[in-house]
Amino acid sequence: MSGRIRSEAFKSKVMSAVDAAAIVENGWNIGFSGFTGAGYPKVFPPALAERIREAHARGEEFMVSSWTGASTAPEHDGALAEVDGVRFRAPYQSDPVQRAKINDGTTYYSDIHLSHMPNLVAQGFLGDLDLAVIEVTAITEDGELVPSSSIGANRTYIEKAKRIILEVNEWQSEGLFGMHDVYYPIGNLPPHRPPLPITSTGDRIGTPTMKIDLDKVVAIIETDAPDRNTPFKDLDEDSLKIAGYFLDFLAAEVKAGRLPENLNPLQSGVGNIANAVLAGLLEGPFENITSYTEVIQDGMVDLIDSGKLAVASATAFSLSPTAAERMNDNAAHYAKKIVLRPMDVSNNPEAIRRMGVISCNGMIEADIYGNVNSTHVMGSRMQNGIGGSGDFTRNAFFSCFVSPSTAKGGAISAIVPMVNHVDHTEHDVSVIVTEQGLADLRGLAPRQRAEKIIENCAHPDYREPLREYVKLAHTKANGMHTPHDLRTALGWHVRFLETGTMKE
Amino acid sequence: MSGRIRSEAFKSKVMSAVDAAAIVENGWNIGFSGFTGAGYPKVFPPALAERIREAHARGEEFMVSSWTGASTAPEHDGALAEVDGVRFRAPYQSDPVQRAKINDGTTYYSDIHLSHMPNLVAQGFLGDLDLAVIEVTAITEDGELVPSSSIGANRTYIEKAKRIILEVNEWQSEGLFGMHDVYYPIGNLPPHRPPLPITSTGDRIGTPTMKIDLDKVVAIIETDAPDRNTPFKDLDEDSLKIAGYFLDFLAAEVKAGRLPENLNPLQSGVGNIANAVLAGLLEGPFENITSYTEVIQDGMVDLIDSGKLAVASATAFSLSPTAAERMNDNAAHYAKKIVLRPMDVSNNPEAIRRMGVISCNGMIEADIYGNVNSTHVMGSRMQNGIGGSGDFTRNAFFSCFVSPSTAKGGAISAIVPMVNHVDHTEHDVSVIVTEQGLADLRGLAPRQRAEKIIENCAHPDYREPLREYVKLAHTKANGMHTPHDLRTALGWHVRFLETGTMKE
Ligand SMILES: CC(C)(COP(=O)(O)OP(=O)(O)OC[C@H]1O[C@@H](n2cnc3c(N)ncnc32)[C@H](O)[C@@H]1OP(=O)(O)O)[C@@H](O)C(=O)NCCC(=O)NCCS
Ligand SMILES: CC(C)(COP(=O)(O)OP(=O)(O)OC[C@H]1O[C@@H](n2cnc3c(N)ncnc32)[C@H](O)[C@@H]1OP(=O)(O)O)[C@@H](O)C(=O)NCCC(=O)NCCS
Repeated sequence: MSGRIRSEAFKSKVMSAVDAAAIVENGWNIGFSGFTGAGYPKVFPPALAERIREAHARGEEFMVSSWTGASTAPEHDGALAEVDGVRFRAPYQSDPVQRAKINDGTTYYSDIHLSHMPNLVAQGFLGDLDLAVIEVTAITEDGELVPSSSIGANRTYIEKAKRIILEVNEWQSEGLFGMHDVYYPIGNLPPHRPPLPITSTGDRIGTPTMKIDLDKVVAIIETDAPDRNTPFKDLDEDSLKIAGYFLDFLAAEVKAGRLPENLNPLQSGVGNIANAVLAGLLEGPFENITSYTEVIQDGMVDLIDSGKLAVASATAFSLSPTAAERMNDNAAHYAKKIVLRPMDVSNNPEAIRRMGVISCNGMIEADIYGNVNSTHVMGSRMQNGIGGSGDFTRNAFFSCFVSPSTAKGGAISAIVPMVNHVDHTEHDVSVIVTEQGLADLRGLAPRQRAEKIIENCAHPDYREPLREYVKLAHTKANGMHTPHDLRTALGWHVRFLETGTMKE
Repeated sequence: MSGRIRSEAFKSKVMSAVDAAAIVENGWNIGFSGFTGAGYPKVFPPALAERIREAHARGEEFMVSSWTGASTAPEHDGALAEVDGVRFRAPYQSDPVQRAKINDGTTYYSDIHLSHMPNLVAQGFLGDLDLAVIEVTAITEDGELVPSSSIGANRTYIEKAKRIILEVNEWQSEGLFGMHDVYYPIGNLPPHRPPLPITSTGDRIGTPTMKIDLDKVVAIIETDAPDRNTPFKDLDEDSLKIAGYFLDFLAAEVKAGRLPENLNPLQSGVGNIANAVLAGLLEGPFENITSYTEVIQDGMVDLIDSGKLAVASATAFSLSPTAAERMNDNAAHYAKKIVLRPMDVSNNPEAIRRMGVISCNGMIEADIYGNVNSTHVMGSRMQNGIGGSGDFTRNAFFSCFVSPSTAKGGAISAIVPMVNHVDHTEHDVSVIVTEQGLADLRGLAPRQRAEKIIENCAHPDYREPLREYVKLAHTKANGMHTPHDLRTALGWHVRFLETGTMKE
């Protein structure tokens, strides 16, 4: 037994993942830890998947509902989906196998704002939580839990579950102790919820550990498996251009007196463009930056090392293997500059709006009127989910969406006449950036937005077709507020489905 | 001169509306008071409209940008729009003439969440505010302003405008003094914004009057004209049915232990259905109710009189002439039960989410997957705007949308395969109610929502066509998460535009 279980009372509950998986019954709702490939249980899900596979082989029904913080990893989401073990999934996922099962109709997926998820569970709107499966770094002598590389919805799942299984993971650094800030009153149901007392990114308002009711613990599993930790890709030219436009825009806002010299707290999605933005900040003129965001990625660790990023608040890591090593080796050092919070705090509208967070997220496509689709491919297919992008976008000081102007080698335009699904409405989108340029939509009416988006953001190959759509729409529309020709508004998507390209 | 101007320093600024209107220059941004036909300036806008008409007759350019709290009245929005005087309009309107000018392309309209508007102005994102025109009940001896029947964005406009014109309106009751709660720190720009200290509907956190810089006052106009005050319509059968389903749902939630016996604070849009809900509450079992909402309408006054409504918070009245008389005669009495707040407080996500407000708003249409359109008719025409519906919906304990299942005598189905515009995304809509029934969408995936919405909410005439669309979409879709046939998804709207009915 590892030295990570320091409370005697917990030790007797240690068992194998296979034995723990045997506890689960068909139809259970299970709340898992895990957020962007960090802090998810590593050995329980494969064991449960194996059990489900065997049950199916015997012709028995066996599926569970899987709730998480956000996305997990192949050995978690992937393993359970692979065996058709997931009837229902919420609130966010990005695993290719799980995605395929959602799109072939096996899994019902409910795509939920991350800040909503803990509320919905606590309010009882998603039904009873039969089991929570939570990865932790250690169990203290007092029987409290030291979280690992993500917090996500763990506090809520531990509180609401009828039973709890813990995975104690020795790969996670003990130096993480003190980095977490677990705040409980946000979980109070109305009318007992006080104001969230965060006014500055680094404010610590809670405790470094999570409480747990020992009586609910039905199993403890030990492991030393690493987080998913996607390797870092070299920055491509488009991402660098997009980051450049975005950073120039920030600089112009500072110059115009609409932003302080150290900016407002930044939120950024994950991925290449976000990494390019962070790399740009490393070179750039801004000092003493702060970040109030969901996820700590490589570039932020670099920014902390450089002294440019004063403090970062998030709910999880999403690091490359190299950066994860660096974090594990120096966690106690980084704990002075990083706060990990429950996701109903990291994504809380109160904190985001109060502090004037600047949001920057990826998108699948935007339309000429400024509506943004973050989730759907050609109307029906789910990509990942909305994640926390709505929490930040709606409450941001101003909100930005970034994407290359085309996808699939140019066969798809990311700027279309009408998006095939709306995740962020025209009321919520301030700025759109592609490698072609930036459209500042603040205070514009739809027709004005169309001109800016087409001329500044669309790929040259699609600019003339978009202008032609606008011209046609102006003659066909039943009103000039948001002129559309509903017969052809989704025609580009239809053409892609029929011919493999949006081009005529 | 009326006795309402009690500060000597202000008296010298009194002049006629015509003289005040002469101050305005072509191209100015003007921030007007006014919210749902309450508290808008009554005599300045017609005088400005006349000046614009004369300028146009002389062949001169003359248009202004008109920012308000929300909708105003014919003598305000209507008068300025009538003379083609409005280049830009935000954040909400409902006047038929102004609407026509938006839809013929004369006016650029930017449809903005009401809680965002004061932020955008304070942040400087909409440009300089050349003039504020604000109706008040009185000017105190100390030179402070007693607001009238709405507050809206007045605090922000008074603070940010280069010049101010006041309309002092004797029709507004002096008894209103003490009903208002003007909170200033919400107007601080980040990082200087503290938590909003509201934890209960009736909390008073500010002052009864608004501060003003005398040096900025360029004119004071006196009037005694009444608010718009739309007459109360008799409750129709559909509205009563919808209200019935909604109230039964609330009762069931109480029974299930998911709501307290006095419910959570209620928000409701205006109009027939909202009035039917309020009438239903008057008969119903709930006692000691509270309302955290935008607008106080007739039914709420009745509920206060009955003792069922303990306290109501809003930013404006929207009363029938009869109820307005009653309010004016007894304002001091009602001021004990009613708090009128700035709209960035009434619509604040912090307060709404913290207190678990239940939202209930009208819609134009919903689609089978739970996306809601509140603003657009057949893709291009603007109806009114999103108003505060997004502020409440996104942050509600649960959010409801209500509408008759058909419009235009049955030629339009309010439940369609795909909405023609999205104002509230599938992530934000908990419950849909029509006179056919109620669909509880909490925790459902898109395909599950489709079944409930079609079977419970669609009109029988459209149920089979909707089922057929679903069947077709299942065969045509590129994924089973949100199965759509993009070729025909908007076909019902196209058919209506071509034939005058959605029926085949
Ligand atoms: C929108 C989102 C999917 C973009 O992700 P990304 O990694 O930056 O984008 P990529 O360019 O790699 O695109 C991902 C896939 O979508 C495809 N794609 C991109 N744009 C597309 C478009 N307009 N139409 C169709 N497919 C498109 C890509 O081709 C790629 O497909 P593949 O997996 O088959 O190669 C991602 O940002 C996301 O999931 N956002 C929602 C959640 C969120 O914003 N979280 C932020 C944290 S708060
Ligand atoms: C959506 C909204 C327009 C409905 O208003 P309402 O007064 O309840 O609805 P009505 O049935 O009178 O409909 C208004 C008009 O829209 C038309 N309409 C209604 N449903 C329609 C549909 N599905 N398609 C086309 N037109 C439709 C009606 O025929 C009517 O047209 P008319 O003016 O030519 O007669 C209104 O609730 C609104 O403006 N909402 C957005 C703002 C908001 O929610 N504020 C709440 C306060 S926070």
